[in-house]
Amino acid sequence: MYLEGINSPIDLKRLTVEELQILSSEIREFLINNVSNTGGHLGSNLGVVDLTIVLHYLFSSPRDAFIFDVGHQSYTHKILTGRKDLFHTLRKYGGLSGFPKKSESEHDIEETGHASTSLSFAYGLACSRNILGIKGDVIAIIGDGAMTGGMALEAMNNIANTDTDIIIVLNNNEMSIGKNIGAISKFLNTTLNDSLVQEASEKVRGIVSTLPFGDIANEFIDRGKGAIRTFVAPGIAFREMGFKYFGPVDGYNYDDLINTFNKVKSIRGPRLVQVNTVKGKGYKIAEENPSKFHGIAPFDIETGELKTKQDSKTFSAIAGECIVNAAKSNKNIAAITAAMESGTGLTEYAKMFPDRFFDVGIAEQHAVTFAVGLAESGIIPFVCLYSTFLQRAYDQVIHDVGIMNANVKLMIDRAGLVPEDGDTHQGVFDVSFLRIVPNITIMAPICEKDFRSMVKKAVEYKGPVVIRYNKSSVRELKNDELLDDIEIGKAYILREDKINNNVIISYGQTLIDITEAAYELNTDFTIINLSTLKPLDEETILKQIKKANKVLIIEEALEAGGIGSAILELLSDNEIYKEVKLHALPDKFFESASRAELLNMYKLDKDGLKEVIKNYFL
Amino acid sequence: MYLEGINSPIDLKRLTVEELQILSSEIREFLINNVSNTGGHLGSNLGVVDLTIVLHYLFSSPRDAFIFDVGHQSYTHKILTGRKDLFHTLRKYGGLSGFPKKSESEHDIEETGHASTSLSFAYGLACSRNILGIKGDVIAIIGDGAMTGGMALEAMNNIANTDTDIIIVLNNNEMSIGKNIGAISKFLNTTLNDSLVQEASEKVRGIVSTLPFGDIANEFIDRGKGAIRTFVAPGIAFREMGFKYFGPVDGYNYDDLINTFNKVKSIRGPRLVQVNTVKGKGYKIAEENPSKFHGIAPFDIETGELKTKQDSKTFSAIAGECIVNAAKSNKNIAAITAAMESGTGLTEYAKMFPDRFFDVGIAEQHAVTFAVGLAESGIIPFVCLYSTFLQRAYDQVIHDVGIMNANVKLMIDRAGLVPEDGDTHQGVFDVSFLRIVPNITIMAPICEKDFRSMVKKAVEYKGPVVIRYNKSSVRELKNDELLDDIEIGKAYILREDKINNNVIISYGQTLIDITEAAYELNTDFTIINLSTLKPLDEETILKQIKKANKVLIIEEALEAGGIGSAILELLSDNEIYKEVKLHALPDKFFESASRAELLNMYKLDKDGLKEVIKNYFL
Repeated sequence: MYLEGINSPIDLKRLTVEELQILSSEIREFLINNVSNTGGHLGSNLGVVDLTIVLHYLFSSPRDAFIFDVGHQSYTHKILTGRKDLFHTLRKYGGLSGFPKKSESEHDIEETGHASTSLSFAYGLACSRNILGIKGDVIAIIGDGAMTGGMALEAMNNIANTDTDIIIVLNNNEMSIGKNIGAISKFLNTTLNDSLVQEASEKVRGIVSTLPFGDIANEFIDRGKGAIRTFVAPGIAFREMGFKYFGPVDGYNYDDLINTFNKVKSIRGPRLVQVNTVKGKGYKIAEENPSKFHGIAPFDIETGELKTKQDSKTFSAIAGECIVNAAKSNKNIAAITAAMESGTGLTEYAKMFPDRFFDVGIAEQHAVTFAVGLAESGIIPFVCLYSTFLQRAYDQVIHDVGIMNANVKLMIDRAGLVPEDGDTHQGVFDVSFLRIVPNITIMAPICEKDFRSMVKKAVEYKGPVVIRYNKSSVRELKNDELLDDIEIGKAYILREDKINNNVIISYGQTLIDITEAAYELNTDFTIINLSTLKPLDEETILKQIKKANKVLIIEEALEAGGIGSAILELLSDNEIYKEVKLHALPDKFFESASRAELLNMYKLDKDGLKEVIKNYFL
Repeated sequence: MYLEGINSPIDLKRLTVEELQILSSEIREFLINNVSNTGGHLGSNLGVVDLTIVLHYLFSSPRDAFIFDVGHQSYTHKILTGRKDLFHTLRKYGGLSGFPKKSESEHDIEETGHASTSLSFAYGLACSRNILGIKGDVIAIIGDGAMTGGMALEAMNNIANTDTDIIIVLNNNEMSIGKNIGAISKFLNTTLNDSLVQEASEKVRGIVSTLPFGDIANEFIDRGKGAIRTFVAPGIAFREMGFKYFGPVDGYNYDDLINTFNKVKSIRGPRLVQVNTVKGKGYKIAEENPSKFHGIAPFDIETGELKTKQDSKTFSAIAGECIVNAAKSNKNIAAITAAMESGTGLTEYAKMFPDRFFDVGIAEQHAVTFAVGLAESGIIPFVCLYSTFLQRAYDQVIHDVGIMNANVKLMIDRAGLVPEDGDTHQGVFDVSFLRIVPNITIMAPICEKDFRSMVKKAVEYKGPVVIRYNKSSVRELKNDELLDDIEIGKAYILREDKINNNVIISYGQTLIDITEAAYELNTDFTIINLSTLKPLDEETILKQIKKANKVLIIEEALEAGGIGSAILELLSDNEIYKEVKLHALPDKFFESASRAELLNMYKLDKDGLKEVIKNYFL
């Protein structure tokens, strides 16, 4: 048992290579045991156990800075840097984050959660160390999936053309969360026996110099620090860009890993090491189901089955069903995901309509403008993204969808408070940043019936439509009548209070808890379901507010710039000055916790809402 | 004179190749004459006259779709598609747009203005044509500068791995707006005599097959559609990705252009043609000053000098001076631009502090997170971006700057209403989308004194600071006393009305016109300069509003989610229900016009403000 004795990377350095390998087995067992209890990211972490061990063995963190792209693969790093005893709290409220967090450890240099940021950050770190004369290597560890993200490619383009001391470890696991898509993947997945490569290089070099065009050829050999090697791919594109390329290295061969990284350490400039790994390595069930074990709820180790079955359908699942239904009757429907086929509920769709399904990889910007292009000739594209990742495509929403008033449907999953992943994954900004974009219609469903109707209307409507929904199971709206069909731009009065004129305005699933809270308070309220957040049904809203005594606007989104704020603007524009209270999320980043805990903390569950409603009106 | 007879691309097809060349001279003369009168983009347009002629000669727009990336190089396209008589109205209110506009012509397929969108859009168009069985080629014309933008690279990665019929014309002018930066530029700027390349390929192929490792080598030759050619760059990276690569072609050699594009037309799949051009081609002064002639005001053709001298300093110039001053006394200051060195006022800084200056290319996402990395070790980075381009880095502002509370200073130029470039370049969203990000401080200077003080405070303050300012000359605030030093988070009362309690709240240069309008109305007003937009000086604001009769909040930003809206939220949170009017920009995209015209249209100039103030208060 070596794991027990490892409390910092220094302890690691005392072990022999054989002992490191035993340690790696222990860490794998530790990870499988812990994650099977807490849930979390498993596949990516099992894949890089050995790579992480070797990096900590050869380099000296935090003097040498490890920057984990996305950061969901940093569990072994956390274990080796003194945090193994916190793993039972993983992703829980107040517990260990599933991503690097500066507050947790001096070994966590960048806080992340979104893909493709590591190279830009690492380059910044390397440049600042250079300016300030600070010693130490900067090592970014990035997966092939994250490498398809535009900002990683922007950084590659920038870094390659400098002489900055930086090491990029390209963790090629031949897939990101879904299948990895694209040319970069192709670059990486050609392997050649390394000695043959060497031999070939030397031979060709010898032959070339004797040829009539030898001068030109030799110019090429010299240019790009060895263009001859481009003859014997892989790594060709990286070499051409200006990187010193090493690899591919087997991510489980300690001798190769250690030899390669020792070579890499001994030189300077921008270096790129390709390490081939396998998601889920060492746990067969995870190796065979990489998508399922990317991020997983508590599971049974023997069978791989989830310990708790999902009790009812999620909004994501219904989104997928709705798009399948639409596509069955309309041949112009298409669906796009950015490496989140399963997460956004598109698995079935992808199987049924492969010709009208596009997984563009981790590339949200491209996804959105690609959809605008599709829409141009009459296709109706559904772009299915998580709210937090849509932030990546904000300019595309304004500049391409908005200005061209494109017939694109944005299905915004994981809007509002998002469980377990913490601050980087909260979907709380979308309402505020989307509602300021001209031409865009925004809707939020309460329940399944509502949602199905909205998707239908979105198909019929010509122009950009956003539908936002939570990461949660759908629930039914009790005690109230919902219409079978919603109309875009129309707010619905779920209940009417004819005595006190107390008005509650809200949208989305929150309305279920609001109506239940109101019911339990046993007082009459007018409850308005906005249904469409933009454009607001000004007539209904103004009419109800004019006759109201007090108004409470509730939303699971930021108060700042939210729909409450939009209604305040509307009232001001109409010179109506009423007592209006906003109950929404405060100006902060939100912690990791279960969804129930988060809703409870911010008084957006039934009990919290009861308290808010009671305090305000009664 | 052939130009007179060209009213549509069909007219072009009747000309001989020699006549096309004469036409190109006529178009150059036309462009120089017109743009010298109207102002506009010149260098990029002169560069692609011949390329555009040849494309329209060989292809059939709009059946074949031309997608111009950015779109500022589409003038020849506009001339050839029946719009030459509108060039005297270029970029004017109600006139010809400087960018493609669907409302102008069926030949304008995508509306643009921002870089790097063309490939995603074109891929969408190509896929939809494929799904729907619509005939016609899809041709994206993109510069090497735009190719460094992440979304273009995301699209390249995606497209390369498909068999989609799409033609990418890479217009390599060896620089974007500023110097082009990075590895992609390196890919493109190596040329080799083509017959030598051919010979070398054949010889190497012959030799390789006789070697002991010939099988492996031949596998490489076959893989990637001729890996042997990778031995004789350029185009190597594109070939490796999966493109059928053609070029580089001399952008002024009609035979080469016509032969190449005829070859390109005859095959299918993703094709990439590299065409080498020169910015400003045919107008020597522009060739020698590509940055100056990128976008230029009316100028004298003989001398290249601007017809009207800038009367006073711009905010951009002062921004540059402030950063230079800061860098002189503080060795930890750095400055970053995304290909806008001159536009953001950094020319002098770049010369004085080359080691602390970073032009990352058109790569706003990378720019922002790179700055976060720089800040990590103690550097204080100033990221100088246009407001509209910051939209590209919104996720980086939230996920990297915001969550890590990084000590990054964002200098947001061209905020508010932006002249001449039209809807795609307006900086009207920034206040609304930035003020919802936790941890971020936002300031807006009224005048030079103010601005200098803000930059100083931003350097002293530890944490993210945004300073937003207009594309305009600075002016002085008359009749009122401004403090020499501002404090972050403090609002200032420029005047106090002790009789009527009429309160006007605003920020930025708008306050100059507000105070002048108020002065001319000869009535007392309390005028509050917010100075810091976030966090709001709640104490001052609440105190003044509490005792106010009526409140008017004025801003040169969207009303939706703006600071007026933030103050309404603040009032609601504090249960203050007062008569508050918001005077800001409506929910729409904004037209092309001069800044004076735009301010006038939206009643944000002195006269308009006088009317608004009078109507509301008097």
